[in-house]
Parts: sequence; C-alpha cells; structure tokens
Amino acid sequence: MWTLLLLSLRLMAAEPEETIRRLLTEQSEAWNRGDIPAFMKTYENSAETAYVGSGGVTKGYQQVLERYRKKYAGKAQMGTLRFTDLQVRALTADVATVTGRFQLTRTKEAGGDASGWFTLVLRKTRVGWQIVHDHTS
Amino acid sequence: MWTLLLLSLRLMAAEPEETIRRLLTEQSEAWNRGDIPAFMKTYENSAETAYVGSGGVTKGYQQVLERYRKKYAGKAQMGTLRFTDLQVRALTADVATVTGRFQLTRTKEAGGDASGWFTLVLRKTRVGWQIVHDHTS
Repeated sequence: MWTLLLLSLRLMAAEPEETIRRLLTEQSEAWNRGDIPAFMKTYENSAETAYVGSGGVTKGYQQVLERYRKKYAGKAQMGTLRFTDLQVRALTADVATVTGRFQLTRTKEAGGDASGWFTLVLRKTRVGWQIVHDHTS
Repeated sequence: MWTLLLLSLRLMAAEPEETIRRLLTEQSEAWNRGDIPAFMKTYENSAETAYVGSGGVTKGYQQVLERYRKKYAGKAQMGTLRFTDLQVRALTADVATVTGRFQLTRTKEAGGDASGWFTLVLRKTRVGWQIVHDHTS
C-alpha cells in the first residue's frame, strides 16, 4: 500500500517533465511534416495565448496560427526543426517553463538556416499541458 | 457585509497586476539609480532563477546578478531604462507573466541606445511576487 502510494507520488512528480518533453517531440514532428495546425495543437486555444518574437507580441491563438502560416508559407520554408538544450521547470503543480534552443535547417532559397533560444510557459488545462506563452528570439 | 466581501474579492483580483506593475516601476527606478543589487531584489534568490538572452540561458540568481554586473559595469553603461507596452497576465493565483518593451537610453561611448521585448514569469513567494524567469531579446 505505502509502496503504491510512494510510486504514485513519484510518477506524479515525474509526470510534468515527461509529458512536456513528449509534447515538444510531437510538436517538432508535426512541424517537420509541414503540418502547422497539428503543431499549433500544443498551444492553448485562447485569446490570451501569446507569442513574443523580434517583432513584439502576437496575442491570441488564431493570430499566432496566422503568423506561422504567413511566415512559413510552405514545407520548404518550414524546413527541419530540432530542439536541443531543453530544460523543464515545474513552477507549481499546474504551471511549468521550458527553455531550449531551436535549430531550423533550410535551403538558401527557402530562407536559409536559423537558430535561437526560446522560453515556453505551459499550463495544465482540462485537455492536458498546453503552451500559453512562447518567447522565441 | 456582502459589499465588503465583493470589495475584497475585487481587490484580490486587481492585486497581482497592481503589485507587479509597482514592482517593475521600483525595478526600473533602482536601475536608473545605478543600483544593480536593488534591481535584482525583484528576482527570486534561487538557483533555479533563469535569464534567457541572445547568449542562451543564465541559470541561478547569483549568475544572473554577475551577468548584469559584468555587462553593465557602471552607471553610464546602465543608462536610463524605460518600460512600455506592459501586459500582465495572471495564469493562476500564484503565477503571472508580463510582456513589455524595454528602451535603454545611453551615450554612444557607453554602448548607445538599445531596445527589445521581454517576457517575465513571476511567482508569489513568501516575500511577495518575484521574477523567476526573464527572457529578454
């Protein structure tokens, strides 16, 4: 009984990090298939969801989706995305941050390679962990 | 009685945003006095506190403090800091994000003007709201 309880507690503690890492793997896989709608499923569908880039703040799930669609108009522009240096930090039972580095491999014609650092803020919603804020630079 | 309860609830709802805005005002005032230790008091003194900039992730309160000290060696290098476009979002009762734009006015000799966007993640700790994560780009 105690063993089960301890095991459950240990699984609960490990859960956010593993779930979030799996989410980011699924996200990059969707990107690499050229599937922006599937990629965006990792973001919370809310008017408060925000993306911060060099151009400032894009607020709203739909607006973030449109930004990606415009900036990455086709599979060639999307290139191949890879995340490294991932660090997940659970701030509370329901909120976590992730930092990491992205590397985009692309042909010169499609915009060339790109890389940078990002911070994601995730919240545990009714449908699981979702990105509520993304700052990529 | 009900009026008092409703008033308390309204104050509780307003509280994070006002407290956080005041914190950022105090923070920029400390910066503009050339007082990095006072500026840093708005960050949680924790080995988990993180700063993400163009050079990647700096982890740990002490390391973030050292980074500021090295990068802004004197009052001239610190210049005059101004925050605009502040948006505070309470994610839960204990966690909030802030986005905004910073503008640093400096002489050419001290490095010249600088500006960019930032995301702060704050957590309500025993000593009040504190920055636990800063992504500035």
